[in-house]
Amino acid sequence: MLPISFLTDYGHGDEFVGVCHGVMQRIAPGVTVIDLTHEVPRHDVRTGALALRNAIPYMPRGVQVAVVDPGVGGDRAALAVEADGRWYVGPDNGLFELVLRRSRSWRCRRIDWRPATGLSASFHGRDLFAPVAARLAQSDGPPPGPEAPPTRYADWPDDLPAVVYVDGYGNAMTGLRAAVLSAGATLDAGGGRPPLPRARTFSDLPDGAAFWYENANGLAEIAVNRGRAADLLGLRPGSPIAPVAVAGAGRADR
Amino acid sequence: MLPISFLTDYGHGDEFVGVCHGVMQRIAPGVTVIDLTHEVPRHDVRTGALALRNAIPYMPRGVQVAVVDPGVGGDRAALAVEADGRWYVGPDNGLFELVLRRSRSWRCRRIDWRPATGLSASFHGRDLFAPVAARLAQSDGPPPGPEAPPTRYADWPDDLPAVVYVDGYGNAMTGLRAAVLSAGATLDAGGGRPPLPRARTFSDLPDGAAFWYENANGLAEIAVNRGRAADLLGLRPGSPIAPVAVAGAGRADR
Amino acid sequence: MLPISFLTDYGHGDEFVGVCHGVMQRIAPGVTVIDLTHEVPRHDVRTGALALRNAIPYMPRGVQVAVVDPGVGGDRAALAVEADGRWYVGPDNGLFELVLRRSRSWRCRRIDWRPATGLSASFHGRDLFAPVAARLAQSDGPPPGPEAPPTRYADWPDDLPAVVYVDGYGNAMTGLRAAVLSAGATLDAGGGRPPLPRARTFSDLPDGAAFWYENANGLAEIAVNRGRAADLLGLRPGSPIAPVAVAGAGRADR
Repeated sequence: MLPISFLTDYGHGDEFVGVCHGVMQRIAPGVTVIDLTHEVPRHDVRTGALALRNAIPYMPRGVQVAVVDPGVGGDRAALAVEADGRWYVGPDNGLFELVLRRSRSWRCRRIDWRPATGLSASFHGRDLFAPVAARLAQSDGPPPGPEAPPTRYADWPDDLPAVVYVDGYGNAMTGLRAAVLSAGATLDAGGGRPPLPRARTFSDLPDGAAFWYENANGLAEIAVNRGRAADLLGLRPGSPIAPVAVAGAGRADR
Repeated sequence: MLPISFLTDYGHGDEFVGVCHGVMQRIAPGVTVIDLTHEVPRHDVRTGALALRNAIPYMPRGVQVAVVDPGVGGDRAALAVEADGRWYVGPDNGLFELVLRRSRSWRCRRIDWRPATGLSASFHGRDLFAPVAARLAQSDGPPPGPEAPPTRYADWPDDLPAVVYVDGYGNAMTGLRAAVLSAGATLDAGGGRPPLPRARTFSDLPDGAAFWYENANGLAEIAVNRGRAADLLGLRPGSPIAPVAVAGAGRADR
Repeated sequence: MLPISFLTDYGHGDEFVGVCHGVMQRIAPGVTVIDLTHEVPRHDVRTGALALRNAIPYMPRGVQVAVVDPGVGGDRAALAVEADGRWYVGPDNGLFELVLRRSRSWRCRRIDWRPATGLSASFHGRDLFAPVAARLAQSDGPPPGPEAPPTRYADWPDDLPAVVYVDGYGNAMTGLRAAVLSAGATLDAGGGRPPLPRARTFSDLPDGAAFWYENANGLAEIAVNRGRAADLLGLRPGSPIAPVAVAGAGRADR
């Protein structure tokens, strides 16, 4: 049996996540289900897509079911995508866009299967995506449905010069890949403050110093040693972050 | 081995839930434990009973351990109920009332077993309910104890004309079953606003429109498309919601 | 395969915990992983150490991976400790201090293994501790590395006359062991209020009464029956709590 990983914006405040677990265990008893996260900001498909892309290299091969679905009950399609040997099950709304960009090859089917007991208008995680994922985990093959390409979101840039996420420590992750920034680049986080220098990690700087570093996902992240960068610098998702290329002896070329 | 599902009001802020998992894995190594939810509002037995009733049809057959227990350490009994082929383990305080109403048949035993190492006054989840659930999961049969009927709560109505829960999206679930409302019924949510019309789902309405729909549990739920209904309409658990039967050409009969 | 229990300060707001689960399942498919808690206050090693000590007696024998790691990326060592037949994997910063004090015997190795794909500067849970824990769970033995004693924190007292934690019910756990307090001891929680009497449990007192009791971990905990003690008494982690020994006929000897 394949393991399942499970990502939603349901939060932990009610039984939605637990009910989907129940559905999966009923169909595929004993299946391993990894809760990747259920705290994607509500209806924020792009943040969900980013979390998925960051996590996938560390997940076992298997089935990824992802539900961030502001269009539930409307006419968006449901998809089962096979990409580089992994299955992705969820709505056709861009949630898999960033994974697909990195994949060498993929095939996509539309999920036309509907439960015999009926499909609720608002809880396709329970009624559609969890059952399909559990059957894929049992290697029962994809659900019936025609091959159909997912909607693509070509205008989503590979690098986003903004804060995309603030984590629980107050670190502000940007959408800029560290690898495409020049070696000595600083980051202008606004507020009239001097651009932030790069450091390797927290412990390289004194307490309270602000800096940026390449985070564990390869993205530039703004931090303050033993402090909450987002609070101290007034950053939140969407705040613009401008790379400042540095050349020669510390001279900044904007 | 039977799967266990696990519902409490412990929250995720500390190690209480994890310790109960440890106890269950120690007794029944490898047992599947589904966290149904641990965010039932503190000491709110009726909301716990409702979450349990909503979730049970989707859970695998096995053992349900539920702990919302304001009377812990007092003289309330501990119960192991077998209903329609499932086991329920928890305090005798109404947590299983709504499940029992829907069950075709059930038997109930009082749990007289106590751990040899002693029973703490405040953490029966760890010391009593988790061990009993794990032994039931191993099909060791019910713990010793006499047959004893659970305390019933006959005055809990089948339909409650009020908000019973606000979910993470800001949707306000009522205690009214959609199936008993008349076809064109509107809902008066107070505040001097016109009664809310029924819609099939979110995407049937323009952004910002308030409406009610039959939610995935069969209950009337008040929502605003791409908005937080509870915030916009000033609703919270306990807010009264009055059904307004509609007959003929839009005439409202209160 | 041994079960793993997993404690961090990562919180549930993002995919950090889920990614570590993925890493463990990739190495040790099907391994049981118990989430002990992920809500240790950020970078609060001592509260993490306390949660670990409280929980361990209830956990199955296996591997405990614990990551509260303000010095990540610096020169603190990574450790694999074997104590009383259990493995502990995490940073050398005191997280295992309270467990070691209670252990009859232990051996400790420094983890010199590093992943072939490189070690991120900020996410050793994913890159170092989760892989080592998963390999230990497979009984592959400890990772290569010399025997090295953990840094000890002898100045951490066995009893701390202060609030160390406020739980989700508003109960204020102190760092005082109930067993070392005299039989009739009261607790002075400040604010000019009379010292709090001891009770066995909540239901022994009228609603709204403040008291202390021996909690399920053997520590003195301040509570209010059907109320939130921390809010009502103005307590938070760090608030001083003074035991007041009572001798004879109610006379208080401070």
